[in-house]
Amino acid sequence: MTVDHATAQPPIANNLSASALSLLKWDENGLIPAIAQDAGTGRVLMLAWMNREALRLSAQEGVAVYWSRSRGRLWKKGEESGHVQRIRAIRIDCDGDALLLLVEQQGGIACHTGRESCFFRELAGEGWRDIDPILKDPQDIYGKKPCAN
Amino acid sequence: MTVDHATAQPPIANNLSASALSLLKWDENGLIPAIAQDAGTGRVLMLAWMNREALRLSAQEGVAVYWSRSRGRLWKKGEESGHVQRIRAIRIDCDGDALLLLVEQQGGIACHTGRESCFFRELAGEGWRDIDPILKDPQDIYGKKPCAN
Repeated sequence: MTVDHATAQPPIANNLSASALSLLKWDENGLIPAIAQDAGTGRVLMLAWMNREALRLSAQEGVAVYWSRSRGRLWKKGEESGHVQRIRAIRIDCDGDALLLLVEQQGGIACHTGRESCFFRELAGEGWRDIDPILKDPQDIYGKKPCAN
Repeated sequence: MTVDHATAQPPIANNLSASALSLLKWDENGLIPAIAQDAGTGRVLMLAWMNREALRLSAQEGVAVYWSRSRGRLWKKGEESGHVQRIRAIRIDCDGDALLLLVEQQGGIACHTGRESCFFRELAGEGWRDIDPILKDPQDIYGKKPCAN
């Protein structure tokens, strides 16, 4: 997979050293959860998954590339919507089994429902209530009913 | 498991309704990833896992209770360290397979290494560099070398 150069960013790292990679713990499917947080607003935008190739591409290209478990393929975030995530930093946690990406969220919309964050439902009483407005109709983002991300 | 009343908080929800629970997707181990974010600083503190009982207890007691995969048991965050997480909000993402907790982190330390956040290593060049200070020596937190969280 290549990432088009219209959205090319300075690389975060051209290569991850063997010792850097050795700190990462991949699950039985070769994946690691990756949290995306807006570097400006601090809002947690989404949780997605990366395999080794997704992390390598993300680090090299400076834009978030995940492994889509539903589609079974690499998924450059924003490839359909234009809502690319430009990476400002990549962090790992203390036991090496989770990643945190600080990103600039293009369009200010991370969620396929047209909201800023995928975490737009909050527990209230015994159920969930929506706390975020829809900033853009998904039909205007995708030109069709979106697939789940 | 019960949570002691010295740290009792108002419940977030005494019961999650069947329809609220039906939105959640548990993995093949009956778990869901839960991100903890500091409600004050916005810092992403950690990623842990919950089973149904951990979520029920967290919602009822208002403090974060996770499922420790390494220990194979429920784990009230801060049960050894005192670094309890008082929950301000529980959110789910658009496809219902991740949770976000907004918390007040007691002691300002989430990580068992004595740092504010477990995400204290950032990719720089080809490797990771520590970006956060150790706020408290783990030996002073635990009185012994800590187990991994």
